[in-house]
Amino acid sequence: MAEREVLTKLNSVAILGFHDGSAGQVEAWFEEATGYHIACFVHEAAEPLNIDVAAENAKRATRRMEYPTLTTFKGRPFIVSDNWLEQLIKLGINKVLPLTPNNEVRLKQINKCRQHGMELVSAIHPSVTILDGATIEPGVWINAGSLIGYKAEIESGVLINTGAQIDHHNVLKQCCQVDPGVVTAGNVTLRECCHIHTGATIINRIEIGRGAVVGAGAVVIRNIPANCTAVGVPARVIRERG
Amino acid sequence: MAEREVLTKLNSVAILGFHDGSAGQVEAWFEEATGYHIACFVHEAAEPLNIDVAAENAKRATRRMEYPTLTTFKGRPFIVSDNWLEQLIKLGINKVLPLTPNNEVRLKQINKCRQHGMELVSAIHPSVTILDGATIEPGVWINAGSLIGYKAEIESGVLINTGAQIDHHNVLKQCCQVDPGVVTAGNVTLRECCHIHTGATIINRIEIGRGAVVGAGAVVIRNIPANCTAVGVPARVIRERG
Amino acid sequence: MAEREVLTKLNSVAILGFHDGSAGQVEAWFEEATGYHIACFVHEAAEPLNIDVAAENAKRATRRMEYPTLTTFKGRPFIVSDNWLEQLIKLGINKVLPLTPNNEVRLKQINKCRQHGMELVSAIHPSVTILDGATIEPGVWINAGSLIGYKAEIESGVLINTGAQIDHHNVLKQCCQVDPGVVTAGNVTLRECCHIHTGATIINRIEIGRGAVVGAGAVVIRNIPANCTAVGVPARVIRERG
Repeated sequence: MAEREVLTKLNSVAILGFHDGSAGQVEAWFEEATGYHIACFVHEAAEPLNIDVAAENAKRATRRMEYPTLTTFKGRPFIVSDNWLEQLIKLGINKVLPLTPNNEVRLKQINKCRQHGMELVSAIHPSVTILDGATIEPGVWINAGSLIGYKAEIESGVLINTGAQIDHHNVLKQCCQVDPGVVTAGNVTLRECCHIHTGATIINRIEIGRGAVVGAGAVVIRNIPANCTAVGVPARVIRERG
Repeated sequence: MAEREVLTKLNSVAILGFHDGSAGQVEAWFEEATGYHIACFVHEAAEPLNIDVAAENAKRATRRMEYPTLTTFKGRPFIVSDNWLEQLIKLGINKVLPLTPNNEVRLKQINKCRQHGMELVSAIHPSVTILDGATIEPGVWINAGSLIGYKAEIESGVLINTGAQIDHHNVLKQCCQVDPGVVTAGNVTLRECCHIHTGATIINRIEIGRGAVVGAGAVVIRNIPANCTAVGVPARVIRERG
Repeated sequence: MAEREVLTKLNSVAILGFHDGSAGQVEAWFEEATGYHIACFVHEAAEPLNIDVAAENAKRATRRMEYPTLTTFKGRPFIVSDNWLEQLIKLGINKVLPLTPNNEVRLKQINKCRQHGMELVSAIHPSVTILDGATIEPGVWINAGSLIGYKAEIESGVLINTGAQIDHHNVLKQCCQVDPGVVTAGNVTLRECCHIHTGATIINRIEIGRGAVVGAGAVVIRNIPANCTAVGVPARVIRERG
């Protein structure tokens, strides 16, 4: 536990999550773009995190992935604990940027933050285009090159990755996740915790159910029920959970 | 009829169309981006327009769609008439931004405007990237995040929606329509009034025939004849019209 | 041969390639964007180039393609020779922008340039978004609207066309080529001289083998071996080369 190392400043933010492709890249621009200070990274777990770096490196050609040590990530304190929220409070940190990749876990974390009066903070890259009338709740990540359409509604905990475009009158419910290059047409609804994978296309007025998964490159022309996985062109449900 | 209410100013423009996803979102930025004044919205019809707002709202999760009353849209006069052109002339309005969604109707309206000496006006969002040598005729809509390639030729009445990219040496003939996230390669030709739906991809040198429809997410690798509908990967013609 | 016409200035660059959709559009913005001077275009061939302009024009609707004469392209000297490198050296030109469309030919040209101490120069359009930690070797083309992700590694000779997005921790090896609108997720590897066609999507951690071809609109969810062609959703290998 690295809580002793955490240097608390006014406007200190704890980032939930530690993957170099999400929390890692946000770290590179967050402070300059927002004026906040990153106090620490947080991973919710009972046990310390032991990453097999050699095994991770074997999965990719790059040698530039960064991994946390037991107590630090990217030179900042790394807190691994089931009691992270209590620790943050003890440290005087009352702002949280929720980037935990798992949508359901992130939703629970957000609700816990709300119950304890923590303030949710967003990371919206300066290159994002936000059109008129869009509303964005606190606690979202919108990565570079994305576009948020006219009167779109983005709720807390939503993750919108690189170059995704969310068109007019879309409603993105809490903790849904949109991968790079996804395109939605007008009046699309993404229910809580659904996940739209890279390069998928969703036509207008479609609703993706709570916790549903849309595969990479899928083209969705019919509503997808809750907790289903749909893939292909046009997208068909191939799996139903629970 | 609201023509008495229309406040005519120098540089007054009538917008043909009233959908909140097209004319509606353009209204939000058009005046600031162009310096023109929106005098009124226009719908070509013999009878007053009676929109069932409850039924419309049932089709989407958002509660922020705006619909016209019998005489106003977005707080501006709304003219519903078969004789809209005569009414505009009487009101001293000589500029028209053609956003009527139906491609064939929009083409007729544009031709009627030309016959009566009306000036066509474009709505090109400030975030659009226009590359060297592209030519854009008056009377087009190019929405946010789109890219118009090197030496592309965009004719009057064309609608290019959010984040579409039209590559080098494309020729987009009058009143064709390109939905969000469409990608065309070089030397593509879109004939009059064809419609390319969300997220479709068209490879280089392809020609899409007059009035043809390309489905969402389709990948077009062969020419599509006039008045046909093509869908899928690769795109195949599934329907031919009269 | 037009070498006598070449006006050599400090910072003079020779562009390898002459297609109006690549070298041609780069010519329109390269000098202003980089401060370099384009001394000439170069095509590697034993015989003079005789382009049948009528036949070329028959393949496309635009009449604005530009073709080289025997000695000029876009009003600049055009050198067609097997001994182009020797000629450039004789002319005092020591900088090369490699835009030859064929990946294997371009790789040989780059290696030849290196052996003779020529400096490789890049053409990166001013509208390109480059995220933190990305590394870009000299001698690449990145066209308008593209996005290079966090810690992506782009090697020499890579061509990234309009609006493509290369996500975090991607590794693009020498002389691979990425067509318009391609989307890659995180940790993707593109090996030497592979070619990803328009609108293709590649999910995270995928490797595309050396010289492999991914068809337009393909959705790649498994590694593609070297020298194979893969198409479709999901992408399947349809052809293997020697």
